[in-house]
Amino acid sequence: MPRNQTLREKLYTVVFRSDNPAGNRFDIVVIYLIVISVIMATVETVGSISPKIRELLRAGEWFFMILFTIEYLLRIYSAKDRWKYITSFFGIIDLLAVLPSYIGLFIQGGQNLLIVRLFRLMRIFRIFEMGHFVREGAIVASALRASRVKITVFLSFIAIASMVLGALMYMVEVGQNDQITNVLEGIYWAIVTLTTVGYGDAIPVTGWGKFLASLVMILGYGVIAVPTGIVTAEISSRVLRPSNRLKTKCINCGDGDHLFDSGFCHKCGHALPEPKKS
Amino acid sequence: MPRNQTLREKLYTVVFRSDNPAGNRFDIVVIYLIVISVIMATVETVGSISPKIRELLRAGEWFFMILFTIEYLLRIYSAKDRWKYITSFFGIIDLLAVLPSYIGLFIQGGQNLLIVRLFRLMRIFRIFEMGHFVREGAIVASALRASRVKITVFLSFIAIASMVLGALMYMVEVGQNDQITNVLEGIYWAIVTLTTVGYGDAIPVTGWGKFLASLVMILGYGVIAVPTGIVTAEISSRVLRPSNRLKTKCINCGDGDHLFDSGFCHKCGHALPEPKKS
Amino acid sequence: MPRNQTLREKLYTVVFRSDNPAGNRFDIVVIYLIVISVIMATVETVGSISPKIRELLRAGEWFFMILFTIEYLLRIYSAKDRWKYITSFFGIIDLLAVLPSYIGLFIQGGQNLLIVRLFRLMRIFRIFEMGHFVREGAIVASALRASRVKITVFLSFIAIASMVLGALMYMVEVGQNDQITNVLEGIYWAIVTLTTVGYGDAIPVTGWGKFLASLVMILGYGVIAVPTGIVTAEISSRVLRPSNRLKTKCINCGDGDHLFDSGFCHKCGHALPEPKKS
Amino acid sequence: MPRNQTLREKLYTVVFRSDNPAGNRFDIVVIYLIVISVIMATVETVGSISPKIRELLRAGEWFFMILFTIEYLLRIYSAKDRWKYITSFFGIIDLLAVLPSYIGLFIQGGQNLLIVRLFRLMRIFRIFEMGHFVREGAIVASALRASRVKITVFLSFIAIASMVLGALMYMVEVGQNDQITNVLEGIYWAIVTLTTVGYGDAIPVTGWGKFLASLVMILGYGVIAVPTGIVTAEISSRVLRPSNRLKTKCINCGDGDHLFDSGFCHKCGHALPEPKKS
Repeated sequence: MPRNQTLREKLYTVVFRSDNPAGNRFDIVVIYLIVISVIMATVETVGSISPKIRELLRAGEWFFMILFTIEYLLRIYSAKDRWKYITSFFGIIDLLAVLPSYIGLFIQGGQNLLIVRLFRLMRIFRIFEMGHFVREGAIVASALRASRVKITVFLSFIAIASMVLGALMYMVEVGQNDQITNVLEGIYWAIVTLTTVGYGDAIPVTGWGKFLASLVMILGYGVIAVPTGIVTAEISSRVLRPSNRLKTKCINCGDGDHLFDSGFCHKCGHALPEPKKS
Repeated sequence: MPRNQTLREKLYTVVFRSDNPAGNRFDIVVIYLIVISVIMATVETVGSISPKIRELLRAGEWFFMILFTIEYLLRIYSAKDRWKYITSFFGIIDLLAVLPSYIGLFIQGGQNLLIVRLFRLMRIFRIFEMGHFVREGAIVASALRASRVKITVFLSFIAIASMVLGALMYMVEVGQNDQITNVLEGIYWAIVTLTTVGYGDAIPVTGWGKFLASLVMILGYGVIAVPTGIVTAEISSRVLRPSNRLKTKCINCGDGDHLFDSGFCHKCGHALPEPKKS
Repeated sequence: MPRNQTLREKLYTVVFRSDNPAGNRFDIVVIYLIVISVIMATVETVGSISPKIRELLRAGEWFFMILFTIEYLLRIYSAKDRWKYITSFFGIIDLLAVLPSYIGLFIQGGQNLLIVRLFRLMRIFRIFEMGHFVREGAIVASALRASRVKITVFLSFIAIASMVLGALMYMVEVGQNDQITNVLEGIYWAIVTLTTVGYGDAIPVTGWGKFLASLVMILGYGVIAVPTGIVTAEISSRVLRPSNRLKTKCINCGDGDHLFDSGFCHKCGHALPEPKKS
Repeated sequence: MPRNQTLREKLYTVVFRSDNPAGNRFDIVVIYLIVISVIMATVETVGSISPKIRELLRAGEWFFMILFTIEYLLRIYSAKDRWKYITSFFGIIDLLAVLPSYIGLFIQGGQNLLIVRLFRLMRIFRIFEMGHFVREGAIVASALRASRVKITVFLSFIAIASMVLGALMYMVEVGQNDQITNVLEGIYWAIVTLTTVGYGDAIPVTGWGKFLASLVMILGYGVIAVPTGIVTAEISSRVLRPSNRLKTKCINCGDGDHLFDSGFCHKCGHALPEPKKS
């Protein structure tokens, strides 16, 4: 029910929401700007680039600093509850996206602070709040939320197991391995091994150490099944159980098993009602 | 309903289709030829082979060049819509399979171009269009198609997380680690670690770096559950509902993404044709 | 039905149980103390810490030694069956948590024994007996119990496959690889590779060795599907069937592995007690 | 229905079958003998053992040689169809288990042949034919059989992708990377990376090479979902669908949803009929 909107209300629709064409376009433009500015900031840290390119990157940074400052001010202006926005997670991230550039202007050693610009990337996580992705990601997000505590228990188990196994490995290898000289390094070894990353920077050198490592590897290989099983079961229960598919019943034949973006009932061809906002 | 076919129609059946004995045999012969020619091209890049063997490999390459040229011309001749075939994905791949050999004949430095021959391998992907494999792979392909957007969201998440974590690691290790000297190298480290590949060519050296790495490893270990869960749920939903086997394209709007037991298109409401027996 | 409890009964409720506020608080305090004492013992093994901090860590260790001794004595005092507690798994772990500190007081070389303190961590596994986690972990634990034998068969298969593949690799690489000089090292290589850990400390150097390694890697990559499939199927069967939540032990034969909706023991046919509300 | 058996028939029951007490004991004894003899053969390949232990290992090998010879002759004698046994897979393995020791007696260089003894391990795969494991492994084996073709298609895809990606990496890194000097080494790199093993012996060194490697790693990380999904779906369909659980109906109440080793119906407590041989 569109009525006469004030400028602030119109801005709010464009800047904060993505369920309308202008807002959607605004979001996509901002995401592109973020990606470009982050790639530039990333390239700037490479030591071997020519001074000319570095000059260009500096100029570009000025451009983005001004753009993101305008966007930040627009967001403050149009927010429904300004203080709530400023102190919100994304509000702080938006501030951190421009602040380092200003500090870098006045302080000589502020150079390194510019790296904080990379946190701009976190603003892209807003992408997951965009309509299209929300609908697609809803099942996964809901499954992850449902398995939150189970996953926490599992990760605690992995953390404790890493500490015990790391201490064991330290006891086995102490004095013979110059890469595992204290328990902290043993724990680091255990995590690298249990997660099957296996850098190779901390490895057992004694026979018994290799035997222990073999057991840990097989353990880690089997244990990966647990989080996968938890998440898969939750996602499956949402895909397989019709009531969990977040969709509407056909008002003609009553069938409730539709794809998310369906406009018509797949059983009888009757038009489906608009899905409710979630 | 076989009727008097022209030569071109007969050739089309043999060259492009695999649902008849002759076409099936043709496909299998071509696949063997591709594999042999690719193994030969692969061995040719090994520096230490004797000149005699190299001579033999050159001769073999001539043989395959002529064979694949004939096949390419046959395909152009017998294709129903010639221009469509030539500009199609496999049409271009088929051309790339012979072109480099011809260029190598006239240009001295064309030697390196011969490597492009290896793209012949991509022609084998036609294998997945062969009858036997189509039926077996249909459930998996349909599951992957259904989870396309979810997987994209997940991979975007991994990409963004890698950039944020790589930047963090760079900030932690800068000045002390000669393997992570800029943010790009930090991102490379993050991807190597998150995916549990763990080459060991970029590793943290400071205590805090190792601590961050430990968190990233455990994150990567847990996060693998997400794509697995998505794909498994989709495959399960197809395996568990026996009535939901194959599906048909809507003849009205062309949409091919229906639930298996659908009678009507979920996009436009048009009645779906009867599914074929599988 | 709370009645007049003796001191010993009250202590039992606080020390051994976590289904009441005081017992829950006690558990959480103990867990924090364990974590702090373990972190201190871990840091103590780092060679480069200053003597002052080392002095502090020693003092802290005295503090924890006394605290854990008091806790141990409280547990013995309040246990329902004292001898059963002392000889139980956690009883021995509780003793091992304080014993090394006392031995370290009297014996000069007892220094190294202090490392055994790290086993205190295992006491945290009691966390999984706490009410909150029990309820969340019950499905996972039950799924793991149900797939116990399947997983054992799978791990035996991996162990045997590792020995056969390790022996094969030894035969292929013998005399040319100074990292795989006997079959034991070959088996170590096979385990490192099959589990996709890939340290890089034992790698094939010959062409045929690399070919064998490639096959082993693809095998290991595919085989991970098996334990995941087993555990996921069991968890799914518990998540998807809502009526199948928790289960009870048979009061006749003690078997605890029943289907969730069972009314009778599947081992001995005795009627099962009513399941408790969860 | 036991009747008067000849010695040969009795021996057959003990030597070849494990569904009777004597046969079961025989199998377990043989497995222990194999494991001990293999451990001894494994230790024998370690270069640094003392001559005394080596002497002992030799003596032990004589002992096992005689024992396994007797077992082999017993098997030939009692087999129902002798020629079929001798030419069967396990018949050849049984012969290979003793042959190398005899050859080693007469030929000086036969020393190395002794390694073939390690193939004795493959005899343990008979374990999977033992009653207890058969029942437990039936679901997994049946699931793997059902997904055989799908897994083959997937592994072909991985093999082809490795060749294409390996060739690409070779083209990107040629001349700058002394670890990837030909396409074969490129393919080896691709397999090591796609399977997330990541030894670190073949790694990209150029910027574009690292970029390509990053894409391959993320691909490999996502693609692991496919075989897992296939196997999990098949196992799930067997665990979740009662008709797929290979078990018997209760003759009293008709319930067909029992655990595999149940002796009594979990619904009504009635004794279940003996499961049929599969």
